[in-house]
Amino acid sequence: MSRPQATQAGLAAQPLEGEPRARVLVAGASGFAGALAARLVWHHPRLELVAATSRRDAGTRLDRLYPRHRVPVALEELDLDATDSLDAAVVAYPHGAAAELVAELRRRELAVVDVSADFRLRDLPTYERTYGDHGAPELLGEAVYGLPELHRDRIAGAGLVANPGCYPTAALLALAPLAEARLVNGVVISAASGVSGAGRDSGERLHFVNVDENFSPYGVGGHRHAPEIDQELTALGCSAEATFVPHLLPLDQGLLTSCYVDLAAEVGEEELRSLYEERYAPEAFVEVVEAPPGVRDVRDTNACRVMVALDRAAGRALAFAAIDNLWKGAAGQAVQNLNLMLGLPETEGLG
Amino acid sequence: MSRPQATQAGLAAQPLEGEPRARVLVAGASGFAGALAARLVWHHPRLELVAATSRRDAGTRLDRLYPRHRVPVALEELDLDATDSLDAAVVAYPHGAAAELVAELRRRELAVVDVSADFRLRDLPTYERTYGDHGAPELLGEAVYGLPELHRDRIAGAGLVANPGCYPTAALLALAPLAEARLVNGVVISAASGVSGAGRDSGERLHFVNVDENFSPYGVGGHRHAPEIDQELTALGCSAEATFVPHLLPLDQGLLTSCYVDLAAEVGEEELRSLYEERYAPEAFVEVVEAPPGVRDVRDTNACRVMVALDRAAGRALAFAAIDNLWKGAAGQAVQNLNLMLGLPETEGLG
Amino acid sequence: MSRPQATQAGLAAQPLEGEPRARVLVAGASGFAGALAARLVWHHPRLELVAATSRRDAGTRLDRLYPRHRVPVALEELDLDATDSLDAAVVAYPHGAAAELVAELRRRELAVVDVSADFRLRDLPTYERTYGDHGAPELLGEAVYGLPELHRDRIAGAGLVANPGCYPTAALLALAPLAEARLVNGVVISAASGVSGAGRDSGERLHFVNVDENFSPYGVGGHRHAPEIDQELTALGCSAEATFVPHLLPLDQGLLTSCYVDLAAEVGEEELRSLYEERYAPEAFVEVVEAPPGVRDVRDTNACRVMVALDRAAGRALAFAAIDNLWKGAAGQAVQNLNLMLGLPETEGLG
Amino acid sequence: MSRPQATQAGLAAQPLEGEPRARVLVAGASGFAGALAARLVWHHPRLELVAATSRRDAGTRLDRLYPRHRVPVALEELDLDATDSLDAAVVAYPHGAAAELVAELRRRELAVVDVSADFRLRDLPTYERTYGDHGAPELLGEAVYGLPELHRDRIAGAGLVANPGCYPTAALLALAPLAEARLVNGVVISAASGVSGAGRDSGERLHFVNVDENFSPYGVGGHRHAPEIDQELTALGCSAEATFVPHLLPLDQGLLTSCYVDLAAEVGEEELRSLYEERYAPEAFVEVVEAPPGVRDVRDTNACRVMVALDRAAGRALAFAAIDNLWKGAAGQAVQNLNLMLGLPETEGLG
Repeated sequence: MSRPQATQAGLAAQPLEGEPRARVLVAGASGFAGALAARLVWHHPRLELVAATSRRDAGTRLDRLYPRHRVPVALEELDLDATDSLDAAVVAYPHGAAAELVAELRRRELAVVDVSADFRLRDLPTYERTYGDHGAPELLGEAVYGLPELHRDRIAGAGLVANPGCYPTAALLALAPLAEARLVNGVVISAASGVSGAGRDSGERLHFVNVDENFSPYGVGGHRHAPEIDQELTALGCSAEATFVPHLLPLDQGLLTSCYVDLAAEVGEEELRSLYEERYAPEAFVEVVEAPPGVRDVRDTNACRVMVALDRAAGRALAFAAIDNLWKGAAGQAVQNLNLMLGLPETEGLG
Repeated sequence: MSRPQATQAGLAAQPLEGEPRARVLVAGASGFAGALAARLVWHHPRLELVAATSRRDAGTRLDRLYPRHRVPVALEELDLDATDSLDAAVVAYPHGAAAELVAELRRRELAVVDVSADFRLRDLPTYERTYGDHGAPELLGEAVYGLPELHRDRIAGAGLVANPGCYPTAALLALAPLAEARLVNGVVISAASGVSGAGRDSGERLHFVNVDENFSPYGVGGHRHAPEIDQELTALGCSAEATFVPHLLPLDQGLLTSCYVDLAAEVGEEELRSLYEERYAPEAFVEVVEAPPGVRDVRDTNACRVMVALDRAAGRALAFAAIDNLWKGAAGQAVQNLNLMLGLPETEGLG
Repeated sequence: MSRPQATQAGLAAQPLEGEPRARVLVAGASGFAGALAARLVWHHPRLELVAATSRRDAGTRLDRLYPRHRVPVALEELDLDATDSLDAAVVAYPHGAAAELVAELRRRELAVVDVSADFRLRDLPTYERTYGDHGAPELLGEAVYGLPELHRDRIAGAGLVANPGCYPTAALLALAPLAEARLVNGVVISAASGVSGAGRDSGERLHFVNVDENFSPYGVGGHRHAPEIDQELTALGCSAEATFVPHLLPLDQGLLTSCYVDLAAEVGEEELRSLYEERYAPEAFVEVVEAPPGVRDVRDTNACRVMVALDRAAGRALAFAAIDNLWKGAAGQAVQNLNLMLGLPETEGLG
Repeated sequence: MSRPQATQAGLAAQPLEGEPRARVLVAGASGFAGALAARLVWHHPRLELVAATSRRDAGTRLDRLYPRHRVPVALEELDLDATDSLDAAVVAYPHGAAAELVAELRRRELAVVDVSADFRLRDLPTYERTYGDHGAPELLGEAVYGLPELHRDRIAGAGLVANPGCYPTAALLALAPLAEARLVNGVVISAASGVSGAGRDSGERLHFVNVDENFSPYGVGGHRHAPEIDQELTALGCSAEATFVPHLLPLDQGLLTSCYVDLAAEVGEEELRSLYEERYAPEAFVEVVEAPPGVRDVRDTNACRVMVALDRAAGRALAFAAIDNLWKGAAGQAVQNLNLMLGLPETEGLG
């Protein structure tokens, strides 16, 4: 594959001078997350977008599908043979469809960030119950769960990173300081996401008229992100069973998790705040704030805004986290992981 | 006061034939809730809208301020002397400003539904902590909390009904069957409301640009509806401390409460559903549904849609209730209460 | 067909006492316009909804698909034999698919309002160029164009009424007084509609994410409502070629036409206003207003708000009309036509 | 004034190495346009944001008011004495309030881009009729109208640039090729803008509830941008009186002008397209497209998307232009002008 040419006047081509760039494939670049990944790679100073592929829209230019992304590149069919010369790939296929391609790319020694759910769950039976058959179970052991704020060191050395789901990203960032401090006795995660989280192909449910001026829970009694949240909370030492309910918001990009934690010990509000501030002080993308975070505050950014408060009478902590579901909840985090895997500054290209 | 004349061709005047109508004042008819109350009274087959008052907009026709309501009546200054001949009043003044007028109207023996918070809290110190000074504490004992599904009989005989807050209405309808069955060991109420719930005068926070594409918690650590919810849950025999957090939705009318209940006993999902279906079978305005309710389902209606589910692993019940915050959460419920107080069919004028 | 039973507690059944009701079929009741027509017939004091049919959703209750409409009736397959006993039908099939059913129903002597475009264009070749083959061209001569404000008398005597398109309804009501006064020398119709105007089955274009925070022209160079507007403007004596461009609004219900008219004679702004006020004084559903009309003013009503102004320097009149595209632009107008055809008061059931 | 310090972990400070940066003041940085200007200057590789001032919000950090902009700088009171050492200023004061500050800054020899309307109209009486008294009429002769696509050369040499209004920007870019080709015999500009165009302080009219699900014309019969459009169309040789009507859209950022042009000569659609493509081929920020442009396509970019089509029967050209009213319609264009004035690449910092 050769580097795609910018073909429209007015679109600045990627500068090629300076330091060498890692050669990157984005597979599945016509969906919301894949297209944003292609944009972030295209505009990244240390990555080169060698190909953006799509079965569905091969031949179409990305800037026709997503004008705002300003990526003057034609989508193409995937040519596996051409991937030998690449350094890395972001795979943004649907759940279940990604594993086989990931295995092929790993065989060719590419560093891979998989945006699907295929390598998020370490336990095969749990995966199968949740998503169905798995195309490459032999890689489950190798994959690292790609939440840098929890697993930065392991991501840095990984060949395969499973990019977290959007809800788990926000829920875990909201809860990690409490879980790590062994303060979680029980937890309710009431979450809400904008429509882009449901993807491009979603039938009548996402017709404008059904979402506009509406707000509703969904996936009650079993959203697919629940086992992923459980796995990671358990890994943080939290044994409480979480209740997780997502809701659909009448907006495009944005996700908020409102977490209600039964506290395992008495703790003051100031103490809670310090816990969060200290935990996240070194994190470039986590902002601990004192006023309630809104999803508008983080739209089109890779930031996660977190706030913690205390309901003393009820003995509960309240922890809120707001992200852009397509950025920190998908493509932005994928590039953050790619930066770590390739030894680049973690924030590069995510400014 | 004489009956206002319809002054615009094309607006059907209220028919005057048939059974006698109760003569009704709507005080504070230029706010969202008051204006809707005026509309419901105007179009009500058994009520006569004798006057709609507003200090701020006296002289302006209601159908200029709220064209959709189609009430061809000029707002006027309140003339207390003219209220002697009336049968009933809906008072939609701001919190704190209603009590004195209510007292005056009660002295004149009008049946009064107060849409403000002034008579919702039975405990004066709690009121004062929450809202400040009270203008007519001597009436606190007389006022009945106007949630018909809980207090229908007492409302029917009451002279003063305190119309519930929008959040408490939905929260209590979601939780009542569980509370009455002594199943509530702990409860989190994560709620969300459209912008009309915040009223007409709300400054920059409700500027379109701050709400659009946004979603955020607010009133964290002490929303004024919390003591009201606590009072009523306690009355239902629930001693657990509730955690209540509201969020602001980027839409006009609609409110959802998502309630997460630590169960006091083991119970199956079918059992839970039966509990709700039986409890609400006689209720004209409560619809127990099996799919998650959305606020769009109830917009511009007095309905409350309730769904219950079980998170068995966590030992929690999930109870959702969707209402239109201006209807069942304010003006619709006020008319429902008025119907009961005046001996009219409860659903009259709310079709 | 027997009258459907209300099957859910809390939904008031249609009262059956009083005057006899006309027996009505709504065919195609699962689309946006058909469902609203079913609702209006169901709640209409002088009509009886005998059946609501849908191929796609037969067996589903209408209040599951459209909870807000509160029509507790199961959709059924059309049974032509059962239509013999009916008085009237509203046909809300897609364009091209309606004509044959309309012909069958006319054979059975039902009064028919066809909400599709099949009988709007009197000229067969124009129809064929615009929509394709016609299923019952022999009825084109019989059909009356159902804009009551222009053709009330002929509608009253008609057996088949072609309900106008949503854009033509607003454009013609905005322009009729000028056209009738022979003041139109040229006209630009810049129009905008909410998403429900595009119907329920519309693929990716109407995915929430593509409409939200967007505004765009469409059908540039040939929207299907253009010949319909031309036909009726010509019938009003206006020979100017109209330019018509629709735009898609990020909202559910609402349509505005902004018409820019090159005036054929000098005329003052007061004179223009009087022209409109006098023309529409007798009209129950047309409101001539002095401030710019917004689509919110008419949502969920059958009203059309019209404003006229003068750009003296340019010699142009500006005429704006706002309607709810599903009400006055479709189902509301269909019931208005049905009222006229059946000799009922024109505003009955549209309050 | 010293360079503000980034004060929050996680916010990347502006790199200071490399080429020297021009020292820039943004005055009035707490409004929508000023804040975006501050952001663009802050992240600009060749500019240094030396101070961002605001009377209203002095002391508040910009990233508290506008978290998404990620400018970790405290707003301060303007200190004129401290401006001597600066190279340039963007003034984003309200209309009428800017002229005096601009004059002060010009006296100190700063290059100034004025985002207000104060220097857009060359004719003082027209200004006074439209906006009231002028604070520095002696500078009207010096100011250059800052639409780079029309006046690039004069902007490059200017000391004072009047940044165009948002509506004029889109209207003129839509119409310039036709006007320059002397093809405009008459023109209607039907335009629509998102709410941010109305600014931050706008009272009840912009309360969420009044805008949501609404669409309405405003400023009918005299919007303040009309004389500005007239002035520039006249300068392009177009003598036709334009009719301009803006509408308010229920969205945040985005503006579309739909222009309907009576053609002065017969011309084919292909010819029209070539005219536009050739005219704008060298322009980095104008994209001539074949499908109707939507405001979503350009959100958060400095692009203007233009489409032209022909209504042959009516003898009219249709020209559409979509911009982000805060970018190309205000702050983005201000930085584009600043780049030209300072001899920097025109697209720098606007990627």
